[in-house]
Amino acid sequence: MTYRLHYWPGIQGRGEFVRLALEAAGQAYEDVARHEDGGEGRLVKDWMRKDRVHPPFAPPYLEDGDQLIGQVAAILMHLGRKHGLATKDEAGALWTHQIQLTLADLVAEVHDTHHPIAMSLYYKDQKPEAKRRSAEFRTDRIPRFTGWLEQVLTNNPGGAEWLVGDALTYADLSAFQVVEGLRYAFPKGTERALAKAPRLVALHDRVAALPRIKAYLMSPRRIPFNEDGIFRHYPELDG
Amino acid sequence: MTYRLHYWPGIQGRGEFVRLALEAAGQAYEDVARHEDGGEGRLVKDWMRKDRVHPPFAPPYLEDGDQLIGQVAAILMHLGRKHGLATKDEAGALWTHQIQLTLADLVAEVHDTHHPIAMSLYYKDQKPEAKRRSAEFRTDRIPRFTGWLEQVLTNNPGGAEWLVGDALTYADLSAFQVVEGLRYAFPKGTERALAKAPRLVALHDRVAALPRIKAYLMSPRRIPFNEDGIFRHYPELDG
Repeated sequence: MTYRLHYWPGIQGRGEFVRLALEAAGQAYEDVARHEDGGEGRLVKDWMRKDRVHPPFAPPYLEDGDQLIGQVAAILMHLGRKHGLATKDEAGALWTHQIQLTLADLVAEVHDTHHPIAMSLYYKDQKPEAKRRSAEFRTDRIPRFTGWLEQVLTNNPGGAEWLVGDALTYADLSAFQVVEGLRYAFPKGTERALAKAPRLVALHDRVAALPRIKAYLMSPRRIPFNEDGIFRHYPELDG
Repeated sequence: MTYRLHYWPGIQGRGEFVRLALEAAGQAYEDVARHEDGGEGRLVKDWMRKDRVHPPFAPPYLEDGDQLIGQVAAILMHLGRKHGLATKDEAGALWTHQIQLTLADLVAEVHDTHHPIAMSLYYKDQKPEAKRRSAEFRTDRIPRFTGWLEQVLTNNPGGAEWLVGDALTYADLSAFQVVEGLRYAFPKGTERALAKAPRLVALHDRVAALPRIKAYLMSPRRIPFNEDGIFRHYPELDG
């Protein structure tokens, strides 16, 4: 059975957290909208179907046979269980999920740095507001999130190698992606914060060196960051 | 064992989703910061402890014996399993969670209607931006979310009485709270959207009439909405 991932074809975006989990688990998947002409239009049409029992509110969503799952954190919980990317005990699995939900909050905040006023407007139509919002994000929010992840690693009874216990989980993959994205979008602000989070930087490097992830990052399946995605590099928003 | 809920003492906020689940399940809980003098200061001190294995990123968090759980959706998943507020089969439980995550996204957007620029600034310091953000929220986002919930109810093979299957889940409680909050914060915009979502309105009323919820809503344990919470009524943001 090949998974079918439904997401915008030209960006990493939220779909990337799902791609990383599928890649780390060595699972075959079809990145549906990327492999078809007119993929974006078909995605919208598929997404908007009115007959679904479990309609996804927004892409990404994943088809696993008859099951359709939306919301990144829910998709990762599902994949984590099936492919050994989450702790098996219930409390550990919930903790893994709690970390993922916190990373999802961060991703939503990143989106709002360049779109603080309206999703339906272009960045250029909300640039002064984006500057104000990004200032707080850089000075207060980035260090708060990286500091929290550093504390999680420091206090992990299983050691600081992984976020949960002593093995890779989807939370590690997502933390890797968040570090990648923050470094791309806010290189200056992020390096200042990461200077105080050596364990998080080491975790990032550890994930990047996993053979399957390393191969993925060098493959054409990894879409480069760009200014249509969630992590966007606008130099005027960094500092 | 009495649950201990840690949350800001003066607001419904995100803590309310947890309170509703505990109340619907008939579970005893201590709303810790509300029952102590200087509760807010102690909450901050407790939250900021550096020695925790599972540090919560932000309130609310719930103590269940030795287990400390943060993130509303994770707390509800835990309570849902223990107290019959979620479907027992794995796919149904994941779908319930997916709905909750979508409601959590809505709550984050509601927060940003009055704080589009910075959490650390007052509303009055970002009022013009709040007006712009709220306009899109009212005209595009509210109908999108209420329309989606209506579709979920309409397509539910278990009937339109509840969101998942044919029994109450925590997703229904959260949908109730979202309708309550939107009606308080954006009465005009919300009524326009709800006019097209009769099943959602009926679900709201069904939850409000549950004996335990009805008793809770009339009790002093239910904090009234106010302008320190997430759902705030600023007439200039509605229309």
